[in-house]
Order: sequence, then structure tokens, then C-alpha cells
Amino acid sequence: SRDPARHKHMSHDRCLYSNMVALSPVLVLTYLSYFHSAVLSFPLDQQSHDTSSCGYKVMPNMLNVHLVPHTHDDVGWLKTVDQYFYGGRNDIQHAGVQYILDSVVGQLLQNPERRFIYVETAFFYRWWKNQPPSMQKAVRQLVDQGRLEFVNGGWCMSDEATTHYSAVIDQMTLGLRFLNDTFGPCGRPRVAWHIDPFGHAREHASMFAQMGYDGFFFGRLDYQDRTNRIRTLEQELLWRASESLEPPYADLFTGILPNGYNPPKGFCWDQSCDDAPIMDDPDLEDYNVDDVVQRFAAAANSQAMAYKTKHIIMTMGSDFQYENANLWYKNLDKLIRYVNTRQANGSQINVLYSTPSCYLQELHRANLTWTLKTDDFFPYADDAHNFWTGYFTSRPALKRYERVSNGRLQTCNQLEVLGGPSSRKGPFGAGDSETLREAMAVAQHHDAVSGTEKQHVANDYARRLANGWQHCQVVVSNSLAALSGSSAGRIYCDNLNVSACPLTEASKKVTDIHAHSCTHAPVKTKIWIEEYFFNRVCVCVCVCVCQFVRATFDPATGLLDSLTNLETQQTIRLTQNFYWYNASDGKSSISDQASGAYIFRPNSSSPFIISCTAETESIQTPELQEVRQQFGPWVSQVIRLHSNSKALEMEWTVGPVPDPPRYHSPALSRLAGVTSWSHRKDFRPTWDLRQTEPVAGNYYPINSRAYIKDDKDQLTVVTDRSQGGSSIHDGSLEIMLHRRLLHDDWRGVGEPLNEMSGVFPLGLVVRGRLLLSLTPPALAADAHRPLAQENVLQPLLSFTEGGPPPGSLLEVCFSGLQAALPPAVHLLTLSQWGQDSLLIRLEHQFQTKESKEHSVPFTVNLQVYTQYTHICTWEPLGTHIHTLFPSQSIINLFMVYLIGKDSVILTPMQIRTFILRVAPRR
Amino acid sequence: SRDPARHKHMSHDRCLYSNMVALSPVLVLTYLSYFHSAVLSFPLDQQSHDTSSCGYKVMPNMLNVHLVPHTHDDVGWLKTVDQYFYGGRNDIQHAGVQYILDSVVGQLLQNPERRFIYVETAFFYRWWKNQPPSMQKAVRQLVDQGRLEFVNGGWCMSDEATTHYSAVIDQMTLGLRFLNDTFGPCGRPRVAWHIDPFGHAREHASMFAQMGYDGFFFGRLDYQDRTNRIRTLEQELLWRASESLEPPYADLFTGILPNGYNPPKGFCWDQSCDDAPIMDDPDLEDYNVDDVVQRFAAAANSQAMAYKTKHIIMTMGSDFQYENANLWYKNLDKLIRYVNTRQANGSQINVLYSTPSCYLQELHRANLTWTLKTDDFFPYADDAHNFWTGYFTSRPALKRYERVSNGRLQTCNQLEVLGGPSSRKGPFGAGDSETLREAMAVAQHHDAVSGTEKQHVANDYARRLANGWQHCQVVVSNSLAALSGSSAGRIYCDNLNVSACPLTEASKKVTDIHAHSCTHAPVKTKIWIEEYFFNRVCVCVCVCVCQFVRATFDPATGLLDSLTNLETQQTIRLTQNFYWYNASDGKSSISDQASGAYIFRPNSSSPFIISCTAETESIQTPELQEVRQQFGPWVSQVIRLHSNSKALEMEWTVGPVPDPPRYHSPALSRLAGVTSWSHRKDFRPTWDLRQTEPVAGNYYPINSRAYIKDDKDQLTVVTDRSQGGSSIHDGSLEIMLHRRLLHDDWRGVGEPLNEMSGVFPLGLVVRGRLLLSLTPPALAADAHRPLAQENVLQPLLSFTEGGPPPGSLLEVCFSGLQAALPPAVHLLTLSQWGQDSLLIRLEHQFQTKESKEHSVPFTVNLQVYTQYTHICTWEPLGTHIHTLFPSQSIINLFMVYLIGKDSVILTPMQIRTFILRVAPRR
Repeated sequence: SRDPARHKHMSHDRCLYSNMVALSPVLVLTYLSYFHSAVLSFPLDQQSHDTSSCGYKVMPNMLNVHLVPHTHDDVGWLKTVDQYFYGGRNDIQHAGVQYILDSVVGQLLQNPERRFIYVETAFFYRWWKNQPPSMQKAVRQLVDQGRLEFVNGGWCMSDEATTHYSAVIDQMTLGLRFLNDTFGPCGRPRVAWHIDPFGHAREHASMFAQMGYDGFFFGRLDYQDRTNRIRTLEQELLWRASESLEPPYADLFTGILPNGYNPPKGFCWDQSCDDAPIMDDPDLEDYNVDDVVQRFAAAANSQAMAYKTKHIIMTMGSDFQYENANLWYKNLDKLIRYVNTRQANGSQINVLYSTPSCYLQELHRANLTWTLKTDDFFPYADDAHNFWTGYFTSRPALKRYERVSNGRLQTCNQLEVLGGPSSRKGPFGAGDSETLREAMAVAQHHDAVSGTEKQHVANDYARRLANGWQHCQVVVSNSLAALSGSSAGRIYCDNLNVSACPLTEASKKVTDIHAHSCTHAPVKTKIWIEEYFFNRVCVCVCVCVCQFVRATFDPATGLLDSLTNLETQQTIRLTQNFYWYNASDGKSSISDQASGAYIFRPNSSSPFIISCTAETESIQTPELQEVRQQFGPWVSQVIRLHSNSKALEMEWTVGPVPDPPRYHSPALSRLAGVTSWSHRKDFRPTWDLRQTEPVAGNYYPINSRAYIKDDKDQLTVVTDRSQGGSSIHDGSLEIMLHRRLLHDDWRGVGEPLNEMSGVFPLGLVVRGRLLLSLTPPALAADAHRPLAQENVLQPLLSFTEGGPPPGSLLEVCFSGLQAALPPAVHLLTLSQWGQDSLLIRLEHQFQTKESKEHSVPFTVNLQVYTQYTHICTWEPLGTHIHTLFPSQSIINLFMVYLIGKDSVILTPMQIRTFILRVAPRR
Repeated sequence: SRDPARHKHMSHDRCLYSNMVALSPVLVLTYLSYFHSAVLSFPLDQQSHDTSSCGYKVMPNMLNVHLVPHTHDDVGWLKTVDQYFYGGRNDIQHAGVQYILDSVVGQLLQNPERRFIYVETAFFYRWWKNQPPSMQKAVRQLVDQGRLEFVNGGWCMSDEATTHYSAVIDQMTLGLRFLNDTFGPCGRPRVAWHIDPFGHAREHASMFAQMGYDGFFFGRLDYQDRTNRIRTLEQELLWRASESLEPPYADLFTGILPNGYNPPKGFCWDQSCDDAPIMDDPDLEDYNVDDVVQRFAAAANSQAMAYKTKHIIMTMGSDFQYENANLWYKNLDKLIRYVNTRQANGSQINVLYSTPSCYLQELHRANLTWTLKTDDFFPYADDAHNFWTGYFTSRPALKRYERVSNGRLQTCNQLEVLGGPSSRKGPFGAGDSETLREAMAVAQHHDAVSGTEKQHVANDYARRLANGWQHCQVVVSNSLAALSGSSAGRIYCDNLNVSACPLTEASKKVTDIHAHSCTHAPVKTKIWIEEYFFNRVCVCVCVCVCQFVRATFDPATGLLDSLTNLETQQTIRLTQNFYWYNASDGKSSISDQASGAYIFRPNSSSPFIISCTAETESIQTPELQEVRQQFGPWVSQVIRLHSNSKALEMEWTVGPVPDPPRYHSPALSRLAGVTSWSHRKDFRPTWDLRQTEPVAGNYYPINSRAYIKDDKDQLTVVTDRSQGGSSIHDGSLEIMLHRRLLHDDWRGVGEPLNEMSGVFPLGLVVRGRLLLSLTPPALAADAHRPLAQENVLQPLLSFTEGGPPPGSLLEVCFSGLQAALPPAVHLLTLSQWGQDSLLIRLEHQFQTKESKEHSVPFTVNLQVYTQYTHICTWEPLGTHIHTLFPSQSIINLFMVYLIGKDSVILTPMQIRTFILRVAPRR
């Protein structure tokens, strides 16, 4: 499985990009390109193997131990990101990132041998902007000399199970851009570094490979997997992270770190640790140099047994460590000195300060063959009864709010571009997209959208998103004013999910502007405010039917009974109901593991049913048909069919989960009728699984869709947020919707996941939507790809008081795109980059082979598509837009410079990014 | 009570001594002189009031807040001194002094405004010797510029209740000498700084005054006393610390710090604290500058209400703080900036980095009158039922071992001088006195000899003393070999207290060399080894009588009945017995305070008697008479009268204190028959006491003696170690001998004081001696002063195998003194200072008015007394000494240079110190 192209990944070409920037008048952000580095990079034979920036002396015949001083700084977890930065609320956890960076830089300056890596740009950025020029200069030198190396470099270290790839790309962009702007090529992270996320997604690895990282290191994987890999020396491997992208475009060297991300036992010299320092005054009672050297040799030799080369890596640091870096460095200096001194007496161990990229370079030089892996590292279990599969669903409301905010940010970005400079400062005041961009970036953290943070921190993330949206609202209002020529006040009813909107409630005449960030398929919807409230039809029906879909219900139970695709004339029997698992409370004799924010551990593999029957009522209007099911006081559902929809919508409402029985578990939705899904039960592709948790051990993250299928039928479920799910029984799919728990699960958060409603002392009520699509397998992607994209990037509604001007058109659609993109191609990002530049990202959203029509390369001529987005209105403002800014004219607002050529080929699953330099039209 | 001479104390004459050193060919260690600074100092009008080294800008009409960054580094407590230095055993307590000094120096170098004070030279010395020259140079600059200021400057911050003044002087010498040698005049501490000791002794203040300190600051005093002083604005005062020394020789400005030694509540920015940092990014949710400034102003104004001047001091630091000094300084920088910025808006608060000496200088400039105080600050209570009077006796065995070691050190010092260079390297190998000197210095710490450390730390102190003695044994052996010309092996039977000595047990013929460090009164004793074991006389007697003393016993009870001084023909009835207090276990409704290492709190004011009668047997030899009393399985006593003694010896043995009843308390010795002692019951000289603990609240430290007296009789008890005692009932004196406790008392040590025997899992057995002297009050001092001195500096015995050479004299006494000093004058110290210099300290050991004969000034001609010490042998080696080194010749070994003149006047209680430069005789 050895791949010669891997050489390109393994290269250590620190700072060789520096010339390229000067060559081109266009800013080529190579590590923002999301092209494989080899594409924009130089030929292999030009690569330098100079190790001078690594600053160490390798001993080829010895065991070389790469000590990597590092800190792991959660961008929020037990404390908010602000609290972590400043060191506030140290009563919760002692952690202050401002001090960490102060201290590390001071220590690096004291000894040129020392190295440090830093990861989370959200923190580094804050620190940097508070430094005087003299300190900034010193830090630049440290970076230029490779003494301070950035790894990963995104705004945060994102979660891999519950994030949407588009938001991850955005947060990586934010962090990497800062590093590039500040440090240039030497600030470029060469390795991805996900030491803490709780399982690892192939999709993330694919992104990292496309971003040009040389390698990827992480710390957590299934304990059985690790045991197996230790035995087979496969803790270092090659991850082929995409079936669609031609190798090596999604190939990534992947290293599993030996001790999670901690130092070996007995060698933690942080202020938060208690290990004995090196006491080297022979006059003292506690002199321990011989003991330390001996213990270190034992640890190094033991570790070397589990890896292939004469080089091993030791992560010398942990959570929020190095606040007083002197403790670490003083002892590491001594360790290196005393261990290496023994070489004169025949010791075969050589210790050195290093970094992941320097370590990677040495692995590369070893010229070995690495095993290939193509699947995920999910689910993650740290022991037999300890599956980290609960967080796939934990805090479902936050997960949804993060997803909604992502759509809002894209809308804001695009309207900021289209509205021009007055978007940021216009009739509605000063707005910006940065606030929401940063809030979204922070929310991607592996203790943010994952739901594994403390309650007050979850509240803080939500507050940041809400605040970000307030800033974006101004941009949107200003932009719409610029585009429409009308400065009429706009209302954004943020609480429409609970049908609360003062404007629409008070006024019957509302102008509804439907700003949509989705580019390839304008969605035409209409808000039937009046009908919704007054024309309710309360008759019981057993069939919902529209142009494309028919759903039938069992009149005896009120439950869904069958689903038919009227176009393809295929019908399946489909039952659906709600269940709940009773959570382990940690008092079992088998294991003391309780369910918690991270861990899912039902105390029985059989869930309890909420109710065998549902009380139903139905509503029919020309636009939609609804069947409303009530399963009990805390579970209800509306099954809805829009007249023009090809998918069946199931809007569930769960909560407040009642107190007794005391230990609650997920409510879940179960569908039955079709056969297998992609994850084989009780099976792992790369090792013989010993299954110890028949439910939790079969849960996987559902990021935006899941399906079960057989030869004839594929039932795809598109979710509106990240959730956990499984197919415990053949033909069934269960999706965990909500969680309420009364115990902590001992993974650090220190709180039971027991979310409360804001107003009442009751458990949180959560509402969400599943969209069901029934198709033949060959056509499934054609349906679910756009369906999921629409669900991720839902329209933003804004309202102005008063009816449409007399004589105006009822429906006006303005699109920022000159012409529709091919359905396979999605404008992933359009946002302002600099004053005279734009960031554009195009993605091919189909996998290879999943669609006859779409799983093919597409050529996009950017000259044609540079009218990138659209604004749809069904109300008269559109008229004015047409008058003032005919859509054809948008493109002429800018002088467009493309990199190289103006046509781009996109192959399945490819993402390509461009910076467009633009100039106002004269 | 204002004393003009106080001006001299208040001066801030930083580094003005620098010229003096150059003027004199003799090293004048002014701050080692133990002369009042005014004596060697310059006239008042030459004093500089330049504040440049204080580096701040005082605002005369504002409230000036002196922030004093500091760390309090116990020289052993929960961890050993080694562990504290390195940061080992951080599982017990996070503390690493090496890092503190690293960090503070780094931070001081970053901002010239910053200040720091350092106290414990035991730690600073270790750190210093590990620094490279570049760092030493940087630190010297900091010291020269007053940015790093030493305060106190002894090896440790000594305890004030349980230390002997001679050992305190030694430990201060050790620390101050290092500072002087290293930093010169700018390293001289100007203030004494006893922020933590648990009560304060007038004697300590007197020493500090004589050492030339400008002022004294401490943190702990009785809570009622503090309340009173806050009300009367008397937290700053003038302590007249001696009745004997003419003012202002023992006058010392004394400041009581406002918050113990901690920062005001809410302003602790150490890594060990949780107070909110200053969060000054207005973009952040947690921005708190306004809140911090407002809270600080409130704290400063509130503090200012309790002090007299426009200057207040705030101690910004605490135990082992500043390990990561950046946290402190970064926030203090901001605090100063933000608080002072408000002056533009009318704020009347001026904050500045300062030091105690700079603060003291401002107090001096205020030109106020301070209240005079003449008594102790004992006992210390931090609340109504929380008297810190238990530690007066805690760990009685350690207290004794420390006292024994003091004598050994003096012997070692003196023999090192007398034996010349071959003492350090001679026939018995290489020895030194430094090891024991440092061990003794460390043992003076307020959690060392005080008995308030953890058990493993107490073991470490003892181990250090034992190790120090091993080094000194070599010096002593070498010196005796040089003086006697015989290199016969010498045995020091260190376990003679339990009659264990392999040599004397195995051999009947032993040569006994009695090396005595006491200079004015050679004691002639004889070890009756054979008689002791074989000639025991077991008849019951009711009277012990010798030439000077008669003691009678009640034949019915076996208890002491009367004591007679045969010289003065005075007799008192004297009863004595043993009692125990039941300790509070913290479960009382009045207070949850348990007895512990610090706190004495009996659960009843009535102690329990061990036994009303004693089983007795008696022994009589020509040399001594003994009555042996057994009071029960764990309490016995030998009352002993030596034939030539004027004091009655009571050798008590207590332990193992049995388990049930579970909560044990001190055993105690109670004497009755005479009336009052110096401490009036339930009374404090400076405020109206509300007594809440009738026993513990009347306990005082007994350092070396206590007495009760009336017009006719004075009964003085000389102790062999520091103990606590009281006179609860008129005419009685009780002395706490031993303590065993099963609860911690919540003052930090975290262990019950439950000492175990080394071999058996039983409570520790402790043995000790009380010497009783009955005299008329007017003659008491004449008896107890030499008695106590002999008890402090007991003879050191060494043995060589084999009998005396045939024909040798049975008793040979060699004295290093050419002639006896006057009885009032004691050679406190004679030790090697440099290669060609000696340290000599003379003290007048009588108080004014206590002796007709001795309480008068004496003139000592050093030329006459420079043969300083004596060595007594009763065995033939002395012959050889006479032959080789006739005592008259000792003086001729050296050329003696005296400072100024060769005669010194010593007034009562005065201590004078000289450095003698000596040269080997040609």
C-alpha cells in the first residue's frame, strides 16, 4: 500500500514558500488553497532536507526521542473562551492562556534549543494583538527560526463528529489566515493536530489532506484498535480519506500519539502536575538524576517497541499547561542533558527538543511503507463500557443553533459582498461579519457544538452566536437597503421556531424578504402567516399526498404506515415511533460508567416505547398537509408534506424529559422497513471487534444524513443538525434526538447533562426536523445532496411592515448569480477577503459513482459565475432591485483577476478556493 | 512616648554604607554587628532622603498605597526544605522556590517599576549558586537599584517562642553574611519581617533592634489586640524591647500588617488563587476594569481608616507565591495603571510598587508619635477558642534535639578555631561546621523547632542535625587530635540519653574526654559508668541531701514534699505531680477547634491526675542521690541531686501516651508552694482581655527558665528545651511536657500531632530534665543564669578505648581561655569566619537590676580573653595537650586585630560582635 506520492506529504520545506509570495502580484495563500500542497508546490527534487530549523542532532543508530512541548487549550469547555484566555474563574479550573503564551515565549527566548508548538489561533490572536512591537518582533523571529511552530492553526481544534465541514473550513480559514498575514510562510502549520477530539472522521482527514498538511496526529482512538495497532506496529499509517478524490489528493500520513497527548508517566513537570522535578544537587537528600534517567530510558524503550522507526515522539504537555513554562523547560533541559550525557557510557538513547513536523520529517526519511486505512475512527471507546457516542446528540438545541448560525453567516458573507462597502456601514449603522465568523469558529471546538461543555459555557457559545448575528443583521439590512434602494426597517424574527414574532403577530400585512444563501437551487417558499393561524383544518386524514410523495398512516395507531415515491412508483412499509433508553447511573457491577455528556451507556439494550399509538389531527392547505401526532405529554411530531416537496418532513418535539424514572436517556426515532446501512453492526473494518456495548458500541455520528437501503429502495434521512444514530436491527434506523442525564460521566465536564428550559425549572424542550427521501439507490444522491444542502443553508427571513406597494410584482427573485451553477457544484463560500479581494470556494458536492448525472467532473467558468449568489424576494422590493441593480450588472461592479485561468475543473468531492482581487468599477 | 532617637531607625539610607567598607582594612559587617545601627552609623543630618531607589512618585495629598510583592517561603513545613526548593512532592503542596526566584527575577527585569522583597536566605543561597554569571550580574543590578530588596535576610524566618536566642543569632548571621558577601551594602535588609510566626517575643525585637534593623513588620497578633489597635490606630508602634538596654538600643518601630501577609480580599493574582484577573479588553463579555478599580478603592479606603498616615502597605503575595510571577505583575501593572488613571477624574488614591523599607521611610517622614509597647505579643489567639499555645511544647523530642545540637555546634565552632586548619582536614578525614550550622539555621524556622511541621519534615530536620553532627564530629576529632597530639579513635555516644553506647557497654576501660563549650564556668563531672550499672543501691529514702540542697519526700505518696536551700537556710513546701489534659476533638458546640500541633485547647480546664502516689526507689552513691518515681506505665521521674549541685534535677519520662481515652492532651508537671509568676493570669498589659480559654489563654512559652516567687522565695525552673507553661493557680507552675493528639487543628499542617516511636507502633517516649533552684529573689539570677547557660550548652562527651596511660593525671583540664571571663560575660560565639578571621560574640547575660553582683557593666579586655574556650579532660590525654600546646601558647597562634580598641564594655543584656582578623604565627 506504499504510495510514492506520499513523499510530498512528508517533506519538510519550512519557509520555502517565501519566494512565491514575492513572485506573484496576487496573494497566493497556499495553505488556504485547499488544494493538495503538491499541486501548487515545487517538484520533489527541489525539496530541502536541511534540518537546521529543527535544530537538533539526530543520532542515526540510536533511539531518537522527540520531545514536543505543547499545551492543549480548549476554546471553551469548563470555562468560556474569555475566561480561559484571561485566567478568570480559576476556581473552576486553573487555566489562563494569556499567561501561557507570555511564559512560553519568555522561555523560548532563553534557550535557542527549546521548541514549542501552538495550536489554537483563537487564543494566539488575542494574545498577539496585546503585545508591544518589540515582543511581536521577538515572536516573529522565533517563528522564522522554527522555535515556535504552529500546528493545526485553525481558530480552534474542531470536533469531528458534530461539525459541518463547511463551518470547519471557515474556522480553519480564519485561523490560518491570521497566521499567514502575521507570519508569512514560516507561520504555516505543516501538520494537523487533533489530539483531543473524541474519534476522527475520514471527512476531516480528507479536508486536512486537501489543505496541504503533511501529516495528522491525534491522541484518541478505540482502546481495542490501539491494542491491535501496538501489536502490529500500525500506530502510524496512511489514511486514504476519500473514495472520490484521486490519490494522493486525500491521502494523509496519520500518527497516533503514544500517551494521548500527555507526557509519559512520571515526566509531567507542569505546575498542574506533581511529578518529582529533576533534583541534581548531589548534596541534597533528594538527588534523583540517576533515577530519572533510568525511568526515562525505560519509558522510551517501551514506547519504541510499539513504533516502527528509530524515532519516537513524546508530547510533553497537556491541558492548559505551560502557564509557567519555566517548570517544564528547566526540567526538560536537564533531562536532555543528563540522558544524553549517558551516551558516553554506552546509552543508546538520544533526546532532543522537536516538533511534530520535525518528527514527521524523520519518519519520512525512514522511507518505510505505511498501512493504508480508508474508514473512520468512530466510534471511540476508551474501555469496554465507555463509548463516547453520547455527544453525537448532546445539547441538540445548541447543535441546531450552530447549524442555523452557519446559514446566517453565509448569508451575511454573501450580502456583505453584494451590497458593497455600505453593507458594513449603512443606513442601519455599522455591522460586520467578523463577530459571527469568530463565534462560529469558536463553536466548532470539540467541546462546543459537541455539547460536552459546562452549561454556562454552552450558554456563552449561544450568546456569542446571537451577538454575532446581531452584527450580521446590520450587514444584511444595509446590504438589502443598498441592493433594493429601500431603507425600510427590517425585522428578523429569530424566534420563529416557536412561532414568536412580534411583528407578524401584530400586523397582518408583512413584506417577507427571503434571503437565501444557497446558490444553485433557488427555493421558492411562502410564509402563510394568516392561513397558518386561522385556516387550520382539523379533520383526521390517513393519507398525505402531494405531487411527488404519498405517506399513509395506520388509522388504528395514528402512526406512519407507508411511504411512496410517486415519480418512481416505489412504496415501502415504514413505521416510526419514539423510544427512550434508561441511562446507566454508574452503579452497575459490570462497570461504574454512567451516561453523560460524552458517554452513551443505556442500562439495557432495549429502549422503552413512549406510546404505541399517537393521538393525531391533521391540517390541510393548498400549500401543505400536516399530520400532528401526540405521543405523550413530552413527545409530539408533525409529519408534513409541502406541495412542491419530494421529501417527507417529520418535525419532532421532545421535552421536557420528565424526572421519574430518574435516569433518563435519549428519546429516539426509529424507522423500519428497509435493510442495511453503511455501518455493519458489531463490526469494525480494521480489527476484530469484541463488542461490549451492543447499543452504544454501534452508534455513529449522523452529520447531515443517514440512509438504509437494499437493492431496490433507499430511504435517506436528512437531519437538521448533527445527531447520533444506529441501525441496531436490520432495516431499522434510530436517531437519538435528545438527552437528559442526572449523572456526570467522569470525563472532566463535571456536570450531568441536564439542560433546563430558560423560563421554567423544567427540562429543555427541543424541536427539530428530519426529511425523508425514498428513492432507488441510484437516484438517492440526486435527491439527498440538494436536500441536505438546503437544510444546512436555510433561508433567512426578514420582514418589513406594510404591504407591497400597489402594482408591484408578488414574487420577485433577484439572484447574485448570472446563471445557475451546475447542480453538482456548490458555492461553498463567498465572502469579503480584503478591501479589494474576495474569497470564493467552489465544491463538487457529489461523491464519485453516486449519481449518473452529477458524479462527473464539471468545468466552471468563473467569468460567467462571478455573480455569485442570489437574493429572492416575493415582494415588491425586488422591482427596485431590478431597477437599480440589474442582476447582470453585479459582475461589472468588480474587476476580476483569477489565478492562472478563469476556468476550473471540479471533480467529485473536490473543493477549490480562490482569492479574487476586485476593484470598484470606474 | 515619642523618642527622637527613633529617627535613626526610620532612615532610609540604602547603600550608603558602601564607602565604609572601603575605608577600613577590617571587614566591618555592620549588619552583623548586633550593635544598634546608630552606633556605627552616621549622624542624622547626613542621612539621605532621596527616594530614587524607591522608584515611585508619592502624591502627598492622596492616599498612597504601597504594594509590596512578596512570597512567604517556609524553610520546611508540609515539605522538607529540599522539596520546597526544588518543587518536589507537589502532591503535598504546590511549591517550588527555585521557580519562584527564576520567575520573579525574570519579571523584575521586564519592568523597572516592579519591586520584590525576598526573605529566606536558605533558599536564595541555593538558587544563587546555581545561576550563571550573567544572571548573577543581572540580579546584582536589581539589588543595587532597590528593585529586589532583601528583608529580614536570615537563613530562615525564625520562630519566636521555641528558639534559643543564640541559635537565632547564628541563623541570622548565616543569612546576612551571605547577603553581605554577595551584594555588599545594597543587600542589607533594613527591616525585620516576621509575617508568619505565631506570636512575637520582646527578646526577638530586642535582637532585631541591636542588629540595626530600621523596623519590624509582622502579621499575626491576638485578635482582640488587633481589634483594639485598629480602633486606637495603634497597629504601628514603637516597641521598647529591653528593660536593660538603654533606649533607643532596643527600640524598634513595629508595624502590624493589615491582612496578615496576604493581599486584600479579591486581589490575589497568584497561580494559587482564583480571583478574577483584570480583564481589560472592552470587546469581551468579562471586562471588569471598572469593577476592579472600584473594589480596590474600597479596600484601600477601608484600610486607611485603621492607620495613621496617608500611606498604607498591602502585602501582595502569600505562601510560596510568585512561582509564576507574571500572573501577579501583569495584573499589578494594570491595577496601578487603571487606578492611577482615575486621578485625572478626581480619584484620591495613588498606587505604587514599593517595599517595606520604602514604606517605612514614608512613615518616618510623617513625623508622628508612636505608642510605646514593652511586653510580648504572646500568647497569640486568632479567635476566642483558638490559642496558638500548643506549639510551645509540640514535638518535645525535636525541641530537645535542636537544643543539644546547638551545644554541639558551639563546641564544633570553638574546636575548629582552636585546632587550626587541621580541624577541617586531619587524621579523621574532612569535616566541617557548615553542615551543622546550616542544619541548625534551618531548624530555627517557625515550622521547625516549633513542632508544627509534618512528621516527615520533622524527621528531615532531625536527619539534617544528625548529619551536621557527623560532619562536626570529624572536626572535633581532628581538633582534639591536633590539641592532644593523639590520633586515637574517638567515639561520640549519641544515644547516651537511653544509656546506649556500644563502646561503654562493651568495654570497661574507657577514656572519657569532656569537651565543653561553655566558657565561664568549667563544669567538672564524671561519668560513673561502672557504678551506674553495678553499684545500684535500692533502699527507700525520704530525703535527698547534698552540700547545698535538701529535698524531702512524703513516704505515704512518694511525692516531693519540700525543698531547702541549705546555704540560705530557706525551705518551701513543694509538691509535684503529673497530670494530663483531655484535648478538644473539635466536636464541641462552642467551637469546632480541636487541639493540634499549633493549638492548645483542653476540653476541660481541669487536668486529670496520672496517679496520686508514686512507686519509688532510691539510689545513693557518693556522687549523687536519686529517687525514682513511677506514676504509671507511661509516666516516671527521677529526682536527682548531684553532690556538688545547687539545683534539684527532675528527669521526667513520659510516653507512650496511651490511646484510650482517645483524645490525649499534654502531660504536665505541676509544682506548688510559692506564689506569683511574671504573667498575671487572665491579663494582658495593653488591653482589657476577655478571657475565653482559661487554660490555653494563660499559656506562655518557657524558653529556658520560668519562676514563681514572693518576697522571700523564688523557685526557678530551668528547662532543657522550649516548653509551654502557665501558672493557672497562684503558687503553682505547670509545664507542658509532651503532647499526643488525634486531630488536626486546621492551621495547615494537615496531620494530627501523633508522634510514634521509631521501632514500635507506639506513641513516642520523651525524656527531659527540669532543674529547680530555690533562692531568695535577689539571688535568683546569680543561680539560674549560669544554670541555664550550662543547660543550653551541655558538655560533649567523647570516648576512646583503653585506660589512661600509666602515671597520667586522672583529671586534666585544658581551657582555651587564658583566664576566666567575668561570670556575667558569656562568650556567645567563637567560630571561624574566614581563612584568617574569627567571629567573636560576647554577651552580658544578666538583666539590669537582677543581680547585685552581676547586673553591672563589665569591661573585657579582648587581648586577655582571646584564649577563648576550654577543653577539659579528666583523662590523661590532657597531659599531651599540655606538652604540645600549653594553654598559654594558644593566643600566640594568632595575630589579633581588634576593631578600634581592645577593651569592650558590656552593659546588662548587651551582645557585642567582633570580627578578628588573625594570622598564623610565624
